[in-house]
Amino acid sequence: MKKYIYADNAATTKLDDEAFEIMKSYLLECYGNPSQPYFFSMKARRAIKEARATIASCIGALPEEIFFTSGGSESNNWAIKCFGSQSDVRTIFTSEIEHHSILNACKRQGNNSTLIYLPVTFDGYITSAALQNAIMKEKSNRAVVSCETKLVSVMLANNEIGTIQDIKKLAAVSHENGVLFHTDAVQAVGHIKIDVKDLGVDMLSASSHKFNGPKGIGFLYIRKGTLIYSLIDGGQQENGMRAGTENTAAIAAMAVALKNNCAYIEKNTKKLAEIEKAFLSVLDNSKMDYIRNGGENRVPGNISVSFNGFSGEMLLHRLDLMGICVSTGSACDSKQTQISHVLKAIDLPMNYAKGTIRVSFGKYNTVEEAEIIAKLIISIIKN
Amino acid sequence: MKKYIYADNAATTKLDDEAFEIMKSYLLECYGNPSQPYFFSMKARRAIKEARATIASCIGALPEEIFFTSGGSESNNWAIKCFGSQSDVRTIFTSEIEHHSILNACKRQGNNSTLIYLPVTFDGYITSAALQNAIMKEKSNRAVVSCETKLVSVMLANNEIGTIQDIKKLAAVSHENGVLFHTDAVQAVGHIKIDVKDLGVDMLSASSHKFNGPKGIGFLYIRKGTLIYSLIDGGQQENGMRAGTENTAAIAAMAVALKNNCAYIEKNTKKLAEIEKAFLSVLDNSKMDYIRNGGENRVPGNISVSFNGFSGEMLLHRLDLMGICVSTGSACDSKQTQISHVLKAIDLPMNYAKGTIRVSFGKYNTVEEAEIIAKLIISIIKN
Repeated sequence: MKKYIYADNAATTKLDDEAFEIMKSYLLECYGNPSQPYFFSMKARRAIKEARATIASCIGALPEEIFFTSGGSESNNWAIKCFGSQSDVRTIFTSEIEHHSILNACKRQGNNSTLIYLPVTFDGYITSAALQNAIMKEKSNRAVVSCETKLVSVMLANNEIGTIQDIKKLAAVSHENGVLFHTDAVQAVGHIKIDVKDLGVDMLSASSHKFNGPKGIGFLYIRKGTLIYSLIDGGQQENGMRAGTENTAAIAAMAVALKNNCAYIEKNTKKLAEIEKAFLSVLDNSKMDYIRNGGENRVPGNISVSFNGFSGEMLLHRLDLMGICVSTGSACDSKQTQISHVLKAIDLPMNYAKGTIRVSFGKYNTVEEAEIIAKLIISIIKN
Repeated sequence: MKKYIYADNAATTKLDDEAFEIMKSYLLECYGNPSQPYFFSMKARRAIKEARATIASCIGALPEEIFFTSGGSESNNWAIKCFGSQSDVRTIFTSEIEHHSILNACKRQGNNSTLIYLPVTFDGYITSAALQNAIMKEKSNRAVVSCETKLVSVMLANNEIGTIQDIKKLAAVSHENGVLFHTDAVQAVGHIKIDVKDLGVDMLSASSHKFNGPKGIGFLYIRKGTLIYSLIDGGQQENGMRAGTENTAAIAAMAVALKNNCAYIEKNTKKLAEIEKAFLSVLDNSKMDYIRNGGENRVPGNISVSFNGFSGEMLLHRLDLMGICVSTGSACDSKQTQISHVLKAIDLPMNYAKGTIRVSFGKYNTVEEAEIIAKLIISIIKN
């Protein structure tokens, strides 16, 4: 296989070695259906129980507050579509920089739902003042009805520009106003320290393959006592909240991957800061006209850079030919360049927006790789 | 590890060896996000495309009619909850012997839905006359409204008693009356020959781990032109119909497992007939008072047997102690024995129903294993 430099860790990550070994044993040996009562399935049942406890301890939750899903998109759809009771009148406050699994799940809401978008600052943040204001405005605009439930859903770390929101403050404002709080933490879990009790969120979504676990598995944290019904009905798996034969191998592997990432968060954060610094130093020394998107508080390793007057699409393509995997902030169809909804929301000038790429480093990257990528970018743009 | 005889293949199956090898390569090497445009992800993209074509050819569908999901429960929930348009007035005809992922998804329907249960014969079948009758009765009971959609959902093979329904006839009756047809084929795909065009179904659910593929993956066949919206919204994966990063490794492995099972359906059916015959011969020779549940047309290897005056729960437990994995048709809580909804629906007398176990053989079982299990059952009951 060709030698690649993989720097698209916000899209997906390399599977942790130990996670693979665990996975293998449940795929090949302990394949029994965990819901069956016989001894042959006991190891699978125990693995799921242990995985739940491990994951809970990584984010400061109780084991019974962790519900396994098929990934971040399902977790987000579940939270958005099923909070409260089925017959409730619903109001959802969200932002324009959320992942499409939030935005499109919100749009799917029926007639008894109101959808309100919170404004985003030019550096990519949702302020608590903006949230307070939106909640007040919504309250004053209509009469109180019985059986209504309101939810705020704001992502913890943005997938495109890496900005980390002040979830603790936003959740507090929500709760002061009797509004539930959900956060899409897909880009944050396993990368920054998270304590759900400290954050004060009611629900939190995570995806295994973003923290070096396998694809096709994730979880939704649901704080004990939070009213929510199931998105996938059927058997009594996940305490009757998410039906379907448990994906034992992937669940066990996800827990190992998360544990391994969380054990080295400080070390990885430090390493990624060095990698980021090396990358940006090369760019800065070249005197190129570029913007780094998003404010100071960002998830480690996520670098969204916009080059004035250049095409991000072309940059990605040229880097690809050299074996470098990065992402773009704009998608080109045959007729025109589409600017991503996030870059639009932060009002990035068009001449920069079109020239955006996202380089996202992970725990397997090195300073040397970062320098190689930065130098290649310069050589592509300058030639 | 202790030596087991695994005879619970209707609950889950052993992973196909070749499927594991494929899975491994996508877990460890080609881990790129299939939605990313760079070369590193090309093999993953291609694997998904090929898996879709392989699966389609195994059931007589077009590749673009196959939509990957996280498994049978999600496929069933999707079909039941999202057929037609979101604002439609909906009527669902289903049976009392469906899997809980159908029954509970149906119960989740809102106020603009009507739910009608079709009667089941004592040998476990839903007749086309019963369906015709139910559709007519529903029609005559209320005025036609605009924007209404109706669906029949009847399973292809029952998970507890193995009965195979005459889906071709039932689908034809549905279509003659302008009603959509879905079948839960989780117990049938990979075990009997299936051609969706010949059956004439609009939707068909399948689960990988029931045909020697990995857990956590499955698919929904949706006939081209069938009106349905997505259950999990977000990114543009699966032609915009099912969001979430594709589980490449599991998708590729599922396709291999299905292809390998389908290539040997005749051989496996013959082998399983011999295994069934050996198992039942031992029981018959012992002159025990038992009933085999379900009529003649059954999925290969699925044997539901009810022993008069005995406890299925105890039988399962005693077999478990001897390393035999089978299932029960009744679940015991601390106070009483719960008879399964399927055994209730076919009106099995209580003294037999309580003594029910399901032995489900698969392609890795042998005649010798079947005889061992049957002899152990006799020795447990007679002693």
